[in-house]
Amino acid sequence: MSSFENKPVDLKNIRITDPFWKTESELVRTEVIPYQWEALNDRVPGAAKSFAMHNFKAAGRLNRYLAEHPDAKAPVFEDPGFEVLPEDDDHIDPDHFYGFLFQDSDFYKWVEAVAYSLTQHPDAELEAVADEAIHTIALAQTPDGYLDTYYILNGRDASFSNLRDNHELYCFGHLTEAAVAYFEATGKDELLNVARRFAEYIAAHIGKEEGKKHGYPGHEIAEMALVRLYETTKDPQYLALSEYFINERGQDPKYFHLEGHRLRNGQTQKDSDEYYQAHLPVRSQDEAVGHAVRAVYLYSGIADIARITGDEELKAAARKLFRSISREKMYITGGIGATHIGEAFSFPFDLPNDTNYAESCASIGLIFFMRRMLQMEPVACYADVMERALYNTVLSGMALDGKSFFYVNPLEVFPEADIRDERKRHIKTVRQKWFGCACCPPNIARLLSSIGTYAYTENEDTLFQHLYIGADYEKKMKEGNANVSVVTDLSDPFCLKLNYRIDHAPAGFRLAVRRPEWCDDMCFDGVKDEEVTFRDGYFYISKDWKPEDEIKAAVTMHAKLMRADVRVRDDIGRAALVLGPTVYCLEEHDNGKELMRLAVAHDTGSSAVETEERDIGGRKVVGLKLPGLRLNGPSQDVLYTEISEDPETFEEVTLHFIPYYCWCNRGENEMSVFIRKL
Amino acid sequence: MSSFENKPVDLKNIRITDPFWKTESELVRTEVIPYQWEALNDRVPGAAKSFAMHNFKAAGRLNRYLAEHPDAKAPVFEDPGFEVLPEDDDHIDPDHFYGFLFQDSDFYKWVEAVAYSLTQHPDAELEAVADEAIHTIALAQTPDGYLDTYYILNGRDASFSNLRDNHELYCFGHLTEAAVAYFEATGKDELLNVARRFAEYIAAHIGKEEGKKHGYPGHEIAEMALVRLYETTKDPQYLALSEYFINERGQDPKYFHLEGHRLRNGQTQKDSDEYYQAHLPVRSQDEAVGHAVRAVYLYSGIADIARITGDEELKAAARKLFRSISREKMYITGGIGATHIGEAFSFPFDLPNDTNYAESCASIGLIFFMRRMLQMEPVACYADVMERALYNTVLSGMALDGKSFFYVNPLEVFPEADIRDERKRHIKTVRQKWFGCACCPPNIARLLSSIGTYAYTENEDTLFQHLYIGADYEKKMKEGNANVSVVTDLSDPFCLKLNYRIDHAPAGFRLAVRRPEWCDDMCFDGVKDEEVTFRDGYFYISKDWKPEDEIKAAVTMHAKLMRADVRVRDDIGRAALVLGPTVYCLEEHDNGKELMRLAVAHDTGSSAVETEERDIGGRKVVGLKLPGLRLNGPSQDVLYTEISEDPETFEEVTLHFIPYYCWCNRGENEMSVFIRKL
Repeated sequence: MSSFENKPVDLKNIRITDPFWKTESELVRTEVIPYQWEALNDRVPGAAKSFAMHNFKAAGRLNRYLAEHPDAKAPVFEDPGFEVLPEDDDHIDPDHFYGFLFQDSDFYKWVEAVAYSLTQHPDAELEAVADEAIHTIALAQTPDGYLDTYYILNGRDASFSNLRDNHELYCFGHLTEAAVAYFEATGKDELLNVARRFAEYIAAHIGKEEGKKHGYPGHEIAEMALVRLYETTKDPQYLALSEYFINERGQDPKYFHLEGHRLRNGQTQKDSDEYYQAHLPVRSQDEAVGHAVRAVYLYSGIADIARITGDEELKAAARKLFRSISREKMYITGGIGATHIGEAFSFPFDLPNDTNYAESCASIGLIFFMRRMLQMEPVACYADVMERALYNTVLSGMALDGKSFFYVNPLEVFPEADIRDERKRHIKTVRQKWFGCACCPPNIARLLSSIGTYAYTENEDTLFQHLYIGADYEKKMKEGNANVSVVTDLSDPFCLKLNYRIDHAPAGFRLAVRRPEWCDDMCFDGVKDEEVTFRDGYFYISKDWKPEDEIKAAVTMHAKLMRADVRVRDDIGRAALVLGPTVYCLEEHDNGKELMRLAVAHDTGSSAVETEERDIGGRKVVGLKLPGLRLNGPSQDVLYTEISEDPETFEEVTLHFIPYYCWCNRGENEMSVFIRKL
Repeated sequence: MSSFENKPVDLKNIRITDPFWKTESELVRTEVIPYQWEALNDRVPGAAKSFAMHNFKAAGRLNRYLAEHPDAKAPVFEDPGFEVLPEDDDHIDPDHFYGFLFQDSDFYKWVEAVAYSLTQHPDAELEAVADEAIHTIALAQTPDGYLDTYYILNGRDASFSNLRDNHELYCFGHLTEAAVAYFEATGKDELLNVARRFAEYIAAHIGKEEGKKHGYPGHEIAEMALVRLYETTKDPQYLALSEYFINERGQDPKYFHLEGHRLRNGQTQKDSDEYYQAHLPVRSQDEAVGHAVRAVYLYSGIADIARITGDEELKAAARKLFRSISREKMYITGGIGATHIGEAFSFPFDLPNDTNYAESCASIGLIFFMRRMLQMEPVACYADVMERALYNTVLSGMALDGKSFFYVNPLEVFPEADIRDERKRHIKTVRQKWFGCACCPPNIARLLSSIGTYAYTENEDTLFQHLYIGADYEKKMKEGNANVSVVTDLSDPFCLKLNYRIDHAPAGFRLAVRRPEWCDDMCFDGVKDEEVTFRDGYFYISKDWKPEDEIKAAVTMHAKLMRADVRVRDDIGRAALVLGPTVYCLEEHDNGKELMRLAVAHDTGSSAVETEERDIGGRKVVGLKLPGLRLNGPSQDVLYTEISEDPETFEEVTLHFIPYYCWCNRGENEMSVFIRKL
């Protein structure tokens, strides 16, 4: 076996050829990135202002002023609150901080998406814009390396005083992700150096050693970002800081309690330790709890550190947290976060369909976590979950035209309830153009524009294909480069055809292809039995490669009527239709009002499902139809009636399903993933 | 036909003999009233203090001080907030107002319950306590007739400045209800005079005339209370004030908008006009909306004024609002208020079982409304709804031992969800001893101790029996008194036997007995066909009465599996078991954990239901059992599974149902009214 260092493929060496995924990343390039740049610069008419670039510029001016006036006093902190808005557009103070206190991160996410996009589609003009913006950021960094415009502008004396709530380390994490991505994409290190200097500043002030704050991030991300910074720079101090964050979290005495005591004079805290995953040391955590995005960002960091250090306890914790999510707390769409209260995981099997949160960002974070689990140990179940989250919740998060976004991804929408019932006010019945707290759109952008690094990872000799996304990749090996070209063909909705062309692969090259949990069968053509080993859900193909070798695979599947574990109270007696990784749903548009009247007869099986070609939002997609029933009535003018006097009656109908990710691309209407099964 | 003035029977002339209802009113007398008195006086160890009597005493002292010091300045208002609590028990200022701003009403409700109780069970000691307390209240009234301790102690200058939110007119309403009840029970008029003087003060400051505030109550009740004051005193100014409140409500320009503009400098209001039923003039209202208790209190007033004035438009509005509730917005238990947000009605057919509010007080208010509709026009459908609310939600509101109470009455409880899911934090899984906002327990007390006035109403010649509650009543008629004795016998759970003994009834006497919507048949013995007329759901019996006449009635019924209108999304495919007016439920105690696994087979009908004698909380009750199914599994270690691979399997079980009002008398556990129907 080769040394095991499973890492994402180099984005600069991969070219996504898959039409579907090319379309998605092109939407990011042509729609999301330009729109977001306008938003970051407060140039979108009618939209809430971001103030992100405003704040960086203001911080830069303050730095210059203080440098030029050595006797001038820096601002002294007075808590301006979580979100600061100007009275009106006419009263914007150019030297004042505005927006959410984590507003800096919006810019960083944009840079990160730009970086990925540049690897796939070089664009000198965009790169010049990014370069200039990065320089603005660099000027905002204070001489000692600190960088968070909220505190720079409102008073550095309070920096790191509220690690739990005030997102400095969160912004640092996004800065670092962006810096590494931009460096890797362009070779330019201005932002990388900004991130390194801030990382060093943090390490000088936060840590185990006496005299430092023994804290850790309230909103995790720095953990995985620091690992990335370490892997790019090879500087072990970043790895050490990440390890410290992972190891210190949840230890007694709890840092957030001490900090809260200082901040609030001992008053009780609003949020629980679970919200921040700080209730237990991470090695003792075995249930996914709290804010779902924070949780999976932390778990990503755990998987990273476990992989690098080989710490078996940490690996065991990561596996338990994965199991907690995938076995007890995940929607069939790969959504996580069953409650909007705290945007959090609920308790096991509590998965309501119509009041859930299932934030786009949480499923993106779940994908981060799964990719890192695959790097830790390539077991197909992680890719199965990654794929489910990607093909359903993440894709649903963005409209088919790339112009609007869901933050929350319900599995059941009844617009009257969502509009009139304030309990569901977090559920939007149509995608929004932008958000004040604009985390999801840029997060979708950075994921989709780097999708190749989730579809494929590699170690020294093996190229792993986790997702069936067509691409060309040039794998660099000691013995020479292997050119791999993967073409996916889904013209038969029940059989995914994969065509691998491997050119000039050195003898040691190995291709590892995942067998998806949803397939009926997966068979190869062009390889002999003895050339294939199956382990942990992957087919490992080693052979004496010919110059223009070709392997074909056929992955057969059928449409499945699925049900949830009986302990999922909200899904009892209900079915969901799934084809491959794609979850389907009913829309009012195709099935009429009051979707709750629809049902599938007891004896209707998967064999009754037929495909139908659909055109939704200008895209050709595979629809599914099957015979169903529609509840009649009411036939009596009373609210409650004796069943024997007035039994349920049904009319026969044809049910039309579309992929969940296509829902709400034809205006506001009812939607449901689950349907009553009689 | 006789003149039509249908009014509740005189409580002093009715004696409840029915063992079930006697037990309930005895619980009020022996448990609730004494406990509440201790609570009102802050003498319950461990319980949140009420401060109700504290506030009255403080107001009385202030009045005396101001009378004795003509130059002293009264307090000037500074908004102390909705609820004022002392720092701790050692820092209670005897001259300070504490508690909710509507705290006065708690005392009034207690006096009202005491008054009713004294009619059934004279108690000189209790009456002396009440007399003394009433005197304390009288001393709290200011010389000009105003009486609200919140404003007296915090500053009269702001009185009537926030009619929408600050409950002065609500407290006045409860004062008036108590005053009339106490006067009628004891003949003592000290509290009646307090109420009259306050009513006159209000009429002098609020009304249509120029110079008065054109407002109306934010929390209704004064409307119906003033009608009662009018009917007792015959003073038309009280009727006029009530009519003004009814007619002015919701007129443009909306008073609450003008008031809000003054109070909040034009800022937008938190709550909507619908919340206060002030969105439209009452004659234009046809949908029950907003805070459910407020709504039904208003509708009670509408029915009162419609009856007295004969206003057909108002009658039509009352009927439409009744239909909106009973056809579209009521739980099968007679609960109303489908959402805890605003403790309010939701939109039509939105009746979730596990997040509902269904406040005990709202069903009590619904009973008020229904009794008044019956007074307006004796049509049995109003009594059907009254009975459903009484026998289920109201009874469920109090533990069988009278010691603890539900504010919210869910139809489905899964304690883990209710405890861990903050969306359900309004749902308590066990009854509470007392509430800071203690509206429900005293409301239950005043209803149960005056239950005779809901069971029976009368006009000049007719005694109406709306509810099957055994009682003796001496009906006063011009021609002499009719002694009516009704004995109810429920020893056969499927046949209610009613025995009417009518002694010395004058020739014109007429007995009107309701035919319940839930019966299979109702037949009489001891009357000839020509002596009975059936109209609007009532059997009117007129005959040549013999000195000791006896009539028997048999009301047969069967246990029914009921379903909701198909538009009730949460009840689709589910059944509820009902026997007579009593809704049944499943408890974990009798059926094991995870009630959501239970189902009734497709072909199981009402005929499969058998009774079983149960002992719950020391009471013998009729349980029901029927064959059912319990979902097995999970049989696979995955969260989602293909149905054909792993179909649902069930084991046969016997389902044990108990009356809904008995639930949660054996500790915290799961409960469900509806069960899956296969």
